[in-house]
Amino acid sequence: MIRCPVELLKKIFNLMLLASLFLVINLEAGQWQIPDSITTMPGGSKLPYREKDGVKEFHLIAEPVKKEMGPGFFVDAWGYNGSTPGPVIEATEGDTVRIFVTNKLPEPTTIHWHGIKVPSGMDGVTGLSQKPIMPGETYKYEFTLDQWGTYMYHPHYDEMTQIALGMAGFFVIHPKSFRGSQPDRDFLIMLGEWAIPPGSSKPIPSEMVNFNYFTFNSTVWPTTPSLSIKTGEKVRIRFGNLSMNSHPIHVHGTVFRETSNGVERFNFDAQFEDVTVNVPVGSVREIEFTMDQAGDWAIHCHKSHHIMNGMGHQTYSLIDLKLDSAEMDKARKLIPGFMLMGSKGMGEMFSHEMHSMPRPKNFMHYGTPGPFGTIEMSGMFTVMKVRDNPEDDKGGWYQNPPGTVASPASKEEIEGLLEE
Amino acid sequence: MIRCPVELLKKIFNLMLLASLFLVINLEAGQWQIPDSITTMPGGSKLPYREKDGVKEFHLIAEPVKKEMGPGFFVDAWGYNGSTPGPVIEATEGDTVRIFVTNKLPEPTTIHWHGIKVPSGMDGVTGLSQKPIMPGETYKYEFTLDQWGTYMYHPHYDEMTQIALGMAGFFVIHPKSFRGSQPDRDFLIMLGEWAIPPGSSKPIPSEMVNFNYFTFNSTVWPTTPSLSIKTGEKVRIRFGNLSMNSHPIHVHGTVFRETSNGVERFNFDAQFEDVTVNVPVGSVREIEFTMDQAGDWAIHCHKSHHIMNGMGHQTYSLIDLKLDSAEMDKARKLIPGFMLMGSKGMGEMFSHEMHSMPRPKNFMHYGTPGPFGTIEMSGMFTVMKVRDNPEDDKGGWYQNPPGTVASPASKEEIEGLLEE
Amino acid sequence: MIRCPVELLKKIFNLMLLASLFLVINLEAGQWQIPDSITTMPGGSKLPYREKDGVKEFHLIAEPVKKEMGPGFFVDAWGYNGSTPGPVIEATEGDTVRIFVTNKLPEPTTIHWHGIKVPSGMDGVTGLSQKPIMPGETYKYEFTLDQWGTYMYHPHYDEMTQIALGMAGFFVIHPKSFRGSQPDRDFLIMLGEWAIPPGSSKPIPSEMVNFNYFTFNSTVWPTTPSLSIKTGEKVRIRFGNLSMNSHPIHVHGTVFRETSNGVERFNFDAQFEDVTVNVPVGSVREIEFTMDQAGDWAIHCHKSHHIMNGMGHQTYSLIDLKLDSAEMDKARKLIPGFMLMGSKGMGEMFSHEMHSMPRPKNFMHYGTPGPFGTIEMSGMFTVMKVRDNPEDDKGGWYQNPPGTVASPASKEEIEGLLEE
Ligand SMILES: [Cu+2]
Ligand SMILES: [Cu+2]
Ligand SMILES: [Cu+2]
Ligand SMILES: [Cu+2]
Ligand SMILES: [Cu+2]
Ligand SMILES: [Cu+2]
Ligand SMILES: [Cu+2]
Ligand SMILES: [Cu+2]
Ligand SMILES: [Cu+2]
Repeated sequence: MIRCPVELLKKIFNLMLLASLFLVINLEAGQWQIPDSITTMPGGSKLPYREKDGVKEFHLIAEPVKKEMGPGFFVDAWGYNGSTPGPVIEATEGDTVRIFVTNKLPEPTTIHWHGIKVPSGMDGVTGLSQKPIMPGETYKYEFTLDQWGTYMYHPHYDEMTQIALGMAGFFVIHPKSFRGSQPDRDFLIMLGEWAIPPGSSKPIPSEMVNFNYFTFNSTVWPTTPSLSIKTGEKVRIRFGNLSMNSHPIHVHGTVFRETSNGVERFNFDAQFEDVTVNVPVGSVREIEFTMDQAGDWAIHCHKSHHIMNGMGHQTYSLIDLKLDSAEMDKARKLIPGFMLMGSKGMGEMFSHEMHSMPRPKNFMHYGTPGPFGTIEMSGMFTVMKVRDNPEDDKGGWYQNPPGTVASPASKEEIEGLLEE
Repeated sequence: MIRCPVELLKKIFNLMLLASLFLVINLEAGQWQIPDSITTMPGGSKLPYREKDGVKEFHLIAEPVKKEMGPGFFVDAWGYNGSTPGPVIEATEGDTVRIFVTNKLPEPTTIHWHGIKVPSGMDGVTGLSQKPIMPGETYKYEFTLDQWGTYMYHPHYDEMTQIALGMAGFFVIHPKSFRGSQPDRDFLIMLGEWAIPPGSSKPIPSEMVNFNYFTFNSTVWPTTPSLSIKTGEKVRIRFGNLSMNSHPIHVHGTVFRETSNGVERFNFDAQFEDVTVNVPVGSVREIEFTMDQAGDWAIHCHKSHHIMNGMGHQTYSLIDLKLDSAEMDKARKLIPGFMLMGSKGMGEMFSHEMHSMPRPKNFMHYGTPGPFGTIEMSGMFTVMKVRDNPEDDKGGWYQNPPGTVASPASKEEIEGLLEE
Repeated sequence: MIRCPVELLKKIFNLMLLASLFLVINLEAGQWQIPDSITTMPGGSKLPYREKDGVKEFHLIAEPVKKEMGPGFFVDAWGYNGSTPGPVIEATEGDTVRIFVTNKLPEPTTIHWHGIKVPSGMDGVTGLSQKPIMPGETYKYEFTLDQWGTYMYHPHYDEMTQIALGMAGFFVIHPKSFRGSQPDRDFLIMLGEWAIPPGSSKPIPSEMVNFNYFTFNSTVWPTTPSLSIKTGEKVRIRFGNLSMNSHPIHVHGTVFRETSNGVERFNFDAQFEDVTVNVPVGSVREIEFTMDQAGDWAIHCHKSHHIMNGMGHQTYSLIDLKLDSAEMDKARKLIPGFMLMGSKGMGEMFSHEMHSMPRPKNFMHYGTPGPFGTIEMSGMFTVMKVRDNPEDDKGGWYQNPPGTVASPASKEEIEGLLEE
């Protein structure tokens, strides 16, 4: 279930196979190729392009997507070219790009190139900049990139529905010439929020505040791949947020520098060090750090409900109810969306007896086996697997040096401890 | 419905007429005049003042206000001097101001001068700094301004109710001497959130999370005037936020600099460039930019629900329900606040058949005619009309140069496109 | 009810008494002592430590806590060593610390040292870094501090429940040598949100958006002590936030500098002046200012609902209902959680007739007597009592110089005022 580097390599290989397939299909019309850079979207892909008369051509297809958001948990999302988030568009400062957009959705759409300076008529706002792209139509956008940074693309027609269903992607513009030292790893993570009723596979686009699934690149842990990093490598993560809330992403095991908002690389004096980066809506935040300590390091949203899935919000306080008691049964019948919350806290939810209780269909279990028992987090959560020699590791868990794991204190050690 | 520059000029003229009226009325007691500056609150007004013994006197009247929030949509708000937000108070660093506050509300009130250093007894906190101003009473505040920037005023009695109903205003203190180049346009926008039940005109002040109207200066688009700007002009927008949530304001067509929080003009190195400015609660954010591209450029909150009106939040997912079907009828009966959401997304809501469906009274329609069909946004949304010659434009839509509008691709162009 | 400096001194004395008690109890095993610094958590305490083989030993006990959140309002919280937030851990850059954690909760727990660089196995993430600490067990954490700043500790097992119930604390690491001038006062304030049904003492940990109690160090005003400050003193306040929302803290009576995020002291040029500091989730924000004006100065969250307690959110708009009318009675019966909201706004809630109405048990009244009548705020609110001679003040209210309190205007003054 957990993606190891080997699986990642397989994935990359498959992608290359797919790309070469395009080469064959489209031989006459120009060669489709995958942009070549270290920039990657974990769990996602890049949009192929072809050169034509000095212009980079791309083809986005807006369409419904069956997305495996968590293990065995499939969601009826909308996206681009079979995926949500849409594939990463990569180009270089100075490029002229021509982007064809085919609408295979049941309603109109358009695309706004969030943060990119384009002519007024290429700006994608339905009714204001252009006509809606009707189902079945293919529109053409064309503009020259005279800026660089991390931008996004998303619909500007019925955006409430279309963004809520997964339509969003990164648009990375590399600078013509890199200044300063470059990172060894460059990850893209799009933050997402979803309201999916228990047992359903259909997100509710009209929901504004009560979300129950929180995603990195439209997946929850452990479907979200872990990030494989070699000790000493310089890492950049670029977060994009088109959801309804700020997400404060906390990074374990290091202190990072907040280096950019995607639009401008901050002056060094204004690059704050921090351990949590708050990513506001409609914004990008980039962080950079060097992992100098091997280990399994969590990275997650710090809103505690955002590292859980499928929570109901009409749940009564059951802290003092006895599990399997008559009150519990009664509660289960009375409370809509009653979530089998344990009587002593949520931890019990992961116990065997809880797991054997009836649950709604297409409801995501969670609790993933880890090196020290169950990892009870999901949602906006993943693990950076930092290793001195990642190639030796085979994607397994970190082997802690002796004496460096929190463990029960000995009888001697607890002697004379502070009493309450 | 859409305010053009001509209408704006009319408005300014009316305001001047009103001001001259005051001059006549108050001739004996000092001349009331409108502060003279390029600073304007689109859709709003400025508070007149008179000089008396070297002091600038102002008069704020706290009172209920019937506010046209959207076209034909009237709200029972509270505000100052007949408007919400209250009129802008403008003064200059070094001024001594005397502000009379008359309470014409059905409950007590006070005013806090948010961010301005005043004596403890002038700070406006009911019970702590002063007695409440009872209905019918007129209180006097007096202090000297030894700072400059963008500040706010609002009640500090029952603030939950009074701010939620619209009681808030800007207090702009100009510096004694301007440093550096000044903007050509200087707009003030107060962000607001309202919970108004369908069919009602009364905002619910106790609502904390489920708002359904989101406003710039207490209006939604298209009642909110568009901003007329000449290409090459330097524009400043100052946003104030006294609502319950951060609002990330996204600006199309330019990259801006975030220059100030109202209290301090940021050191140039700390003036980040960005395309979305997140305005936290209780805060001001100022952005500056030069519009170098003519066009119709949207400016709006990027929380997608905040550019819609009157949404219910108990709406089921109707993506797969067929419009006008029996299920739809059933849903309409069963679901309180059912919002006629289309079966294929919200877009359908703007179709003719949807418009002919029964709606609650005093419910705001939206969908405004634009140059390319319906503009389906409202709420915290407006348009910057940037023109090379605004005077020739007469407030109409932008005339795009040939070949610069996204449009259907030709048969030849789509040949050999990437297939899914 | 309101804590005066005398009471604070008493508290400190009691704490010292308690500390000396520990000295007696633990004489054989090393002397437990309270860290010696000006850093204080108003309403809270510090964790004692003992030196052993050059290591600083601490003992945290995770356990249920009966917390007096407001006057007579007791909450069944969880915390450490009898308190929520847990006692402040203080150490110095370069220290090796050994922290014993005893679990007296009814479910497992662990501790994550938020922001502190530790070996992977000491990072506290259940299942990933270590096994859960089962009820009754005592675990040992050990690491060396090679950084300084304001950090936090909290569970990383069932964090949704455990943090929501109050398990959080500060971990302050002082620099080996202080650079620059130090503040005279150094306050720690942990921000909290709670969902406690009317009449209940049990917070609902599954609540994600509809909180009704908002706390500084797990108390609401006036249980939260006021801050006693001498005019001219340099004050630092460090805010920590492990709740579900950003809290924009507004400070009256001064303009502060935002100097740090706990991890890095900002370069002076990047230390913005402001009057409201937005504290994101999972984050620390430090502000510094010199109070140059004596007075009673409010400091509070600027989300207006966060300075109220016990609000229901199904409350109808009663602005036009007549109090004690038949509609009111009907409303009271029909509306769950109906909050006795006044017919003219919330202010009426504080009137005598309202106070005599039936209320649920264990429901917090509010409205505190102040120098000018009732202070109607509570929640995330307290007062900085800034005095030229605090020792003369005895904790009373500020004595305003004549003519500096907002008061009714005279007949002559209101002559010729602007009419509406
Ligand atoms: Cu956007
Ligand atoms: Cu989050
Ligand atoms: Cu963590
Ligand atoms: Cu304020
Ligand atoms: Cu907004
Ligand atoms: Cu937009
Ligand atoms: Cu944390
Ligand atoms: Cu708050
Ligand atoms: Cu205040």
